[in-house]
Amino acid sequence: MIKAGIIGSTGYAGNELVRILTGHKEVEIKWYGSRSYIDKKYYEVYQNMFQIVDDVCMDDNMEVLANEVDVIFTATPQGLCASLVNEEILSKVKIVDLSADFRIKDVATYEKWYGIEHKSPEFIEEAVYGLCEINREDVKKARLVANPGCYTTCSILTIYPLAKEGLIDMSSIIIDAKSGTSGAGRGAKVDNLFCEVNENMKAYGVATHRHTPEIEEQLGYASGENVLLNFTPHLVPMNRGILVTAYANLKEGVTYETVRAAYDKYYKEEKFVRVLDKDVCPQTKWVEGSNYVDVNFKIDPRTNRIIMMGALDNLVKGAAGQAVQNMNLMFGFKETEGLELVPMFP
Amino acid sequence: MIKAGIIGSTGYAGNELVRILTGHKEVEIKWYGSRSYIDKKYYEVYQNMFQIVDDVCMDDNMEVLANEVDVIFTATPQGLCASLVNEEILSKVKIVDLSADFRIKDVATYEKWYGIEHKSPEFIEEAVYGLCEINREDVKKARLVANPGCYTTCSILTIYPLAKEGLIDMSSIIIDAKSGTSGAGRGAKVDNLFCEVNENMKAYGVATHRHTPEIEEQLGYASGENVLLNFTPHLVPMNRGILVTAYANLKEGVTYETVRAAYDKYYKEEKFVRVLDKDVCPQTKWVEGSNYVDVNFKIDPRTNRIIMMGALDNLVKGAAGQAVQNMNLMFGFKETEGLELVPMFP
Amino acid sequence: MIKAGIIGSTGYAGNELVRILTGHKEVEIKWYGSRSYIDKKYYEVYQNMFQIVDDVCMDDNMEVLANEVDVIFTATPQGLCASLVNEEILSKVKIVDLSADFRIKDVATYEKWYGIEHKSPEFIEEAVYGLCEINREDVKKARLVANPGCYTTCSILTIYPLAKEGLIDMSSIIIDAKSGTSGAGRGAKVDNLFCEVNENMKAYGVATHRHTPEIEEQLGYASGENVLLNFTPHLVPMNRGILVTAYANLKEGVTYETVRAAYDKYYKEEKFVRVLDKDVCPQTKWVEGSNYVDVNFKIDPRTNRIIMMGALDNLVKGAAGQAVQNMNLMFGFKETEGLELVPMFP
Amino acid sequence: MIKAGIIGSTGYAGNELVRILTGHKEVEIKWYGSRSYIDKKYYEVYQNMFQIVDDVCMDDNMEVLANEVDVIFTATPQGLCASLVNEEILSKVKIVDLSADFRIKDVATYEKWYGIEHKSPEFIEEAVYGLCEINREDVKKARLVANPGCYTTCSILTIYPLAKEGLIDMSSIIIDAKSGTSGAGRGAKVDNLFCEVNENMKAYGVATHRHTPEIEEQLGYASGENVLLNFTPHLVPMNRGILVTAYANLKEGVTYETVRAAYDKYYKEEKFVRVLDKDVCPQTKWVEGSNYVDVNFKIDPRTNRIIMMGALDNLVKGAAGQAVQNMNLMFGFKETEGLELVPMFP
Repeated sequence: MIKAGIIGSTGYAGNELVRILTGHKEVEIKWYGSRSYIDKKYYEVYQNMFQIVDDVCMDDNMEVLANEVDVIFTATPQGLCASLVNEEILSKVKIVDLSADFRIKDVATYEKWYGIEHKSPEFIEEAVYGLCEINREDVKKARLVANPGCYTTCSILTIYPLAKEGLIDMSSIIIDAKSGTSGAGRGAKVDNLFCEVNENMKAYGVATHRHTPEIEEQLGYASGENVLLNFTPHLVPMNRGILVTAYANLKEGVTYETVRAAYDKYYKEEKFVRVLDKDVCPQTKWVEGSNYVDVNFKIDPRTNRIIMMGALDNLVKGAAGQAVQNMNLMFGFKETEGLELVPMFP
Repeated sequence: MIKAGIIGSTGYAGNELVRILTGHKEVEIKWYGSRSYIDKKYYEVYQNMFQIVDDVCMDDNMEVLANEVDVIFTATPQGLCASLVNEEILSKVKIVDLSADFRIKDVATYEKWYGIEHKSPEFIEEAVYGLCEINREDVKKARLVANPGCYTTCSILTIYPLAKEGLIDMSSIIIDAKSGTSGAGRGAKVDNLFCEVNENMKAYGVATHRHTPEIEEQLGYASGENVLLNFTPHLVPMNRGILVTAYANLKEGVTYETVRAAYDKYYKEEKFVRVLDKDVCPQTKWVEGSNYVDVNFKIDPRTNRIIMMGALDNLVKGAAGQAVQNMNLMFGFKETEGLELVPMFP
Repeated sequence: MIKAGIIGSTGYAGNELVRILTGHKEVEIKWYGSRSYIDKKYYEVYQNMFQIVDDVCMDDNMEVLANEVDVIFTATPQGLCASLVNEEILSKVKIVDLSADFRIKDVATYEKWYGIEHKSPEFIEEAVYGLCEINREDVKKARLVANPGCYTTCSILTIYPLAKEGLIDMSSIIIDAKSGTSGAGRGAKVDNLFCEVNENMKAYGVATHRHTPEIEEQLGYASGENVLLNFTPHLVPMNRGILVTAYANLKEGVTYETVRAAYDKYYKEEKFVRVLDKDVCPQTKWVEGSNYVDVNFKIDPRTNRIIMMGALDNLVKGAAGQAVQNMNLMFGFKETEGLELVPMFP
Repeated sequence: MIKAGIIGSTGYAGNELVRILTGHKEVEIKWYGSRSYIDKKYYEVYQNMFQIVDDVCMDDNMEVLANEVDVIFTATPQGLCASLVNEEILSKVKIVDLSADFRIKDVATYEKWYGIEHKSPEFIEEAVYGLCEINREDVKKARLVANPGCYTTCSILTIYPLAKEGLIDMSSIIIDAKSGTSGAGRGAKVDNLFCEVNENMKAYGVATHRHTPEIEEQLGYASGENVLLNFTPHLVPMNRGILVTAYANLKEGVTYETVRAAYDKYYKEEKFVRVLDKDVCPQTKWVEGSNYVDVNFKIDPRTNRIIMMGALDNLVKGAAGQAVQNMNLMFGFKETEGLELVPMFP
């Protein structure tokens, strides 16, 4: 039984971490960090946890925490983890950072897209990009894992086999992504009020969204090419779920069978990536509450484009579930421990 | 490890049974009954079960089934279970009936409210009303359990301690209930289309809803009085959840403390009934996906009425979860086995 | 053509006033007051008004405004209108106050329930309670109209004929009300975020909601009795709409026909109150976007209670539409001018 | 005052036609056609119309109807209008067909994508494609107007100025479209049940949706090229609204100013097309209930692609509103008559 601390436990991703870890046999949460609710009972912030969690919220003190737990999850805004981490801390504790601080290898790119200075660039190289299906072996050895973003996880896993196998023109990729509103966090903003989101749909961050370089970098590694692509996020009136519809030009001679074989090659043995039957389009509801990513594709022979589709629960595989999957690998637990969550429908 | 069969496995309650039993250590589902989808893969009907359930749907043959499993769940429309059950079947297998067939002890009342003839009234007396918190000992010994309805479970558990302790005027009860749309089932009806339900709210079945006599009967047992009450269900634009707001006149001298003590007396040791802190009103979202019922109350000294509130997930504690809880008791398993589901928020 | 000013034009009710007045033949909006957005284009706050309204937002200066317009609508938080109004202003301009400041005749009751001091109690007596269907003649002569609240309008109009005709026991009234989320306003609060409201339902303000004394006072006038009742509001995951389900004990001998005759007596000639056909329950969607209130009732002979139901759009008949209806009466316009809005379905 | 008949008046588009025509000064509805509800009061099918429409539903007899009205709207499934229309009818009455029967000039294309035989191909050439902003003069002279589809209207108007002005590579167009559920009609299908759509998102008809050739044909006329493109529709959990996100490669040297000038050239004088301010992304809620299409665009200099966005209300500009706009042109009424509907927010 290891001990875990969560910095930022009262955001939506933090609460999802609590939900998942509560059912995990090898972990006990010892620290519910939340700057906004220090000394308040955790269940008073999230009444779903009434009679399940009786702890009070603590400050975000990573130094103290490093002495008390084996793993720290940082589910905080960009910049916080980078500003707190140091060698002493990393020598005592493993960290799964759910923010973007260590996802992008090029500091300049990070600083440009996020508009903040990186406070500990010395750990970027060491940090492992925690997409378990792709970097499993590295994750197992990591002290510091950069847990991928929700849009990113869905986008990369949807496109990865084709990028890796060289089946698509990497300069032709367009990702049109749709997200439930929990991805926007629990901050009190007019834009996220029920009446503004309900019965409404919009694109946002068009051509400027911060997840773009993260996707480009990872697909670049997969394809061995420099990748520039379009990524357009949309806000959807639902709580959870990300749906990615991605487009690319197929290389010559690529058939349904070639593509299917590529998906199977990388995902057949993967518990959490489900390649759906032919012609079945992913739906976000089919993965809700679970750590699954459902992917599939369709070829349009008229335009010779492939339409790739992926769906996941942004708070599970897109955040907390993936973080636990990473932790499982880092500590040598069964990779699926705590994550055998059956999707809830309806 | 016992074997279970589900008759009506492709309704929403049936699918929820599959979700819950999939995580149950003592049970294996051997029969996915579904008249509408015979020979079809179960996951093709519910893609959330892709790569989790690989079985095909079977007919609703209870006689065959009785030889193959240890417990049968009937999640079917009223009348079906009563028309299939017989002594031979009951001698071989235990049954948890999620329909109304065996909930009401008076056949005439059943036939009047449901408008159908009861095909096996001989088993009504034997059948145990499966509200575990109230009839736990009887459930343990039962061959046939009548699993309570969703509205009913919420209404009864919300009011029970006050009825039992004689704190309210039993002739003054008014239950105003609100339900998510999954309670209406998966039948293709115009009234349940997205565009008819979304952005809309209505009462229905006013003064005539079939759950009324069930609530009256159970609260009658609790109070030792004949109970007539008003029950008004409403349809709410959400998938899951029942919220009950119940009103009654307090008897003289009853204070906040008296009432709180009554709730604590009956529910303090109950895992699945959470009496919330003073002044905290139950919200359906706080129990979603779990087997909890959250209850609380408020006294209005101006009118001397008490407002009792309860919330549950209609597919879990209001249907499948309760059915599994009953099964656990019937087979001597840990009562909470498979049901330690943490509510999902948001 | 008269000139109108709106103080608080960037709240949801304010925006609805703009929507309605834009289609009104006798009125021109000259002042879009909004303390939070001074000098900003109105359409930048509400893009639905792009190319329809080109004005910028102004301060909430009632003295200046009184010289420039014929009617002022105050769609602001409690206390503001009372703090701004004075005799000089009222001598120049008519005011329709959408806040609660002048709704309750007894200052002590107002101050107790709202927890603020009333800054101009001298105008309370003069102010007319602007429920047009009941106080039409007084509204016509008024300088200052207190526009009723959304819950209140729905509750009172649903119960009024029975109170007035003495058909129900006035001490037995219970009002269980359900509201869409726009009633909570456009303030940035965690409780009103999409993810907190969506897929959720709760009661709030139980036994303490401020609309209670307003309903009691008006039903008291109707019945000639002191009225105490229970009023329980609930938050529903929809943008617009209020549904009231009200319960009362019928007096002896009251039949369906008696009740129906009472409703017809008061509403048959009323354009905006629709008494539905027998057994048809009101639905909020059927009145959305319109100034209608749909009402109906059902008698339960088992308990001798009547269940009265009413539905309206909280931003129209529950706020802006009613305000315009009042203005029409005050200025001698056709009462329905600008209000012949056909409900939008779905 | 002309007389109108609606064939298919009880679908969602039919009901929206009734809503709009009810407020139209030059038209009176004389025939509420609905095969499914013959002899039933129209308001019993759509209670929003209670006390507004008192007529009963009639059969879909176009021959009889042609003698009684001046204009017929056919809001029916594909194939019906083509099977009913003939020269005699067209000599007596003007027709606005909301189905796809006369939208596509090439019969073979129609028959291939719709999978049905065209019953009156002789009228295809005569039929005018009723996108008023593009074919205004032809519509004025038409006897038979093919009212464009909802996805189509939004897609074409979003891309048209760039196609017409030759600013984009016409072989690079990808349209990712999102629709509210009313676009799926009022038929009772499991897929459109509240619980299947709510909290869910999916693509459907990928690479095969019938609106594809309609968009290709019209953009082909605009650009003077043969156009093949990708069109992917998605179902969104909201009642109304279509959002189009379209991608294309910009031709060399095309700047923000070039593109903006193109949009202004075609839409500056158009009442119902609003080109939003720079960097403002269209939202479906901002046009809800109105006949507006909001469009805008963003250039990504990194990929040299343009992201074009458009939003409309699928039942208004995407169906009934556009049909009335066409009728206004055909009869010489003011083009905006009955259509000055202010978008409703929230």
